[in-house]
Amino acid sequence: MAVDPSGGWDHPAHAAMARAVAASEDARGTTSPNPPVGCVVLDARGEVAGVGATQPPGGPHAEVVALRAAGDRARGGTAFVTLEPCAHHGRTPPCVDALVAAGVARVVYAVADPNPKAAGGADALRAAGVRVESGLLAQEVERGPLRAWLHYARTGQPHVTWKYAATLDGRSAAADGTSRWISSAESRAEVHRLRRQVDAIVAGRGTVLADDPQLTARTPDGALADRQPLRVVVGVGDLPAGARVLDDSAETLHLRTRDVDEVLAALAERGVVDVLLEGGPRLAGAFLAAGRVRRVLAYLAPTLLGSGPAALGDAGVTTIADAVPLTVEDVTSSGGDVRISAVPGEPGRSR
Amino acid sequence: MAVDPSGGWDHPAHAAMARAVAASEDARGTTSPNPPVGCVVLDARGEVAGVGATQPPGGPHAEVVALRAAGDRARGGTAFVTLEPCAHHGRTPPCVDALVAAGVARVVYAVADPNPKAAGGADALRAAGVRVESGLLAQEVERGPLRAWLHYARTGQPHVTWKYAATLDGRSAAADGTSRWISSAESRAEVHRLRRQVDAIVAGRGTVLADDPQLTARTPDGALADRQPLRVVVGVGDLPAGARVLDDSAETLHLRTRDVDEVLAALAERGVVDVLLEGGPRLAGAFLAAGRVRRVLAYLAPTLLGSGPAALGDAGVTTIADAVPLTVEDVTSSGGDVRISAVPGEPGRSR
Repeated sequence: MAVDPSGGWDHPAHAAMARAVAASEDARGTTSPNPPVGCVVLDARGEVAGVGATQPPGGPHAEVVALRAAGDRARGGTAFVTLEPCAHHGRTPPCVDALVAAGVARVVYAVADPNPKAAGGADALRAAGVRVESGLLAQEVERGPLRAWLHYARTGQPHVTWKYAATLDGRSAAADGTSRWISSAESRAEVHRLRRQVDAIVAGRGTVLADDPQLTARTPDGALADRQPLRVVVGVGDLPAGARVLDDSAETLHLRTRDVDEVLAALAERGVVDVLLEGGPRLAGAFLAAGRVRRVLAYLAPTLLGSGPAALGDAGVTTIADAVPLTVEDVTSSGGDVRISAVPGEPGRSR
Repeated sequence: MAVDPSGGWDHPAHAAMARAVAASEDARGTTSPNPPVGCVVLDARGEVAGVGATQPPGGPHAEVVALRAAGDRARGGTAFVTLEPCAHHGRTPPCVDALVAAGVARVVYAVADPNPKAAGGADALRAAGVRVESGLLAQEVERGPLRAWLHYARTGQPHVTWKYAATLDGRSAAADGTSRWISSAESRAEVHRLRRQVDAIVAGRGTVLADDPQLTARTPDGALADRQPLRVVVGVGDLPAGARVLDDSAETLHLRTRDVDEVLAALAERGVVDVLLEGGPRLAGAFLAAGRVRRVLAYLAPTLLGSGPAALGDAGVTTIADAVPLTVEDVTSSGGDVRISAVPGEPGRSR
């Protein structure tokens, strides 16, 4: 059935998928290398019968969790899923079989599964007589909870978000090295929430030597968050024995290389899908020069310095024609800071 | 009469003042050192009877232009004015007298006149039996057409907007000096419209030597706009004889000083109220260090360079606590660029 993605969906469908997206978002950081999927099952009368999200690897997928919660009420109902249900036997049986067995009459998913092994779920459902539709809130899912995993599924590489905080004139610290606090309390809290959701935080050895960061996810009161990403330090030399990044608040991996693709391969091998690159300027420049940054998240503080270290170091660009083109996805306010999310690629823009 | 500025105005009042604001905006760049005021006169039935804007110095003020257009229809009507009508004899008779003589029953103005010589208009109108209200669209006027003049009226100094274009990482050009085009066609067209509206464009001699800019206002097809601001070059040494800034497309003033306040005094003496500071990084740093930048207008292109000259040079800040705090007024998209308008001052923000 062809559906107008812009407005062909009724309000209950929107509301159900929005709840599935929220469940998907909640599961981020706990499912890699599997996708953090969300699922909402409505009964035949349109009431919410079950909500579920992907469980950690080895556990049931989102559809199965939601169907279990719905029980008999799933019969004749509709399942809203952020990702096309899988049709293959992985560590768990195919979700398509569970949906058919539960008697679901209709499945609506946001985005198709790009993984050739898992794809074919829609066809299998249709073959079993289930009505299948797709595309509802697709952009929210592609830019939101499944962004990193979709990239990983398409390329086999972890998705890298380069996050930086700088002044409006692009400085990450003042001339004397001081930088507390360039960004607002709200921006810093958001970064800690983001850290909690990713699989790994990556920083350069130079940043560890200069700033001795702990690279942990914390709650606003300063306590360690309930989940901690893998801490990854990139650089050939040793780390100081007392470095905070080596404390016992989270696991730490020291990769003795300067090669960006070696870093990504080592992380992919450990099942890391979603990477937050936090610094410093030299490592960010290397990732950009290698074309491995998939999203730039800039927190620009409403202040000017006029001197001090730049947020971004050498990215292999010497002339304007070689500048790394981005497309701005969204611009929001974050406690007085301007927060810009951008992705690589030339937008449809006139010069 | 006390009025709730947030919502106490009816739709016709809003529409009339919005049209007065547009007339005010249209007059920018032609009235200095007088304010570019706009006025709309509604007749007793609420129909638009006359619209007017301040004419060039020596010519009639906005109220008089609108009243002349309205003729007898002004009697019993309402005048909407972006600035409190003047009560003093300058080069022209007081507008208050003209409003009273025309039989206007009510006057609504957006912002009060901070000029002690001109103030008292509201009181004089009330004394003549006219109903007076104020504050409608005050913020639009204060941030819009009267921003520069209000600053000038309060301080005696020209209002300086520092405009710059840079990459997301704060570079104004690549390492080899190339910079065409960092900003989008839409941003460049907006800057040309802004140049047409200001009294003067200021650049440093270093920028003239390095980039040989013409510093003119142009239409999108490349033709000279119908109005050209004064071109001002700041720097002690001579300018090259063939510099484009010395061509006959507009008047040019060379100020042989490095002192920011000497620059502003020389400009104020010539009746300059609204200044656009366009570069380079060293001059911008000097104006910021002197506390003379009243607005920052940043066009951030969605691109990264990682090397190349910084948009802002030394502003006398060496430690983070001395960073120049700004408050972001608004953030908009401009042909793919992120356009940020900010004003000096610490916002109510948590750190």
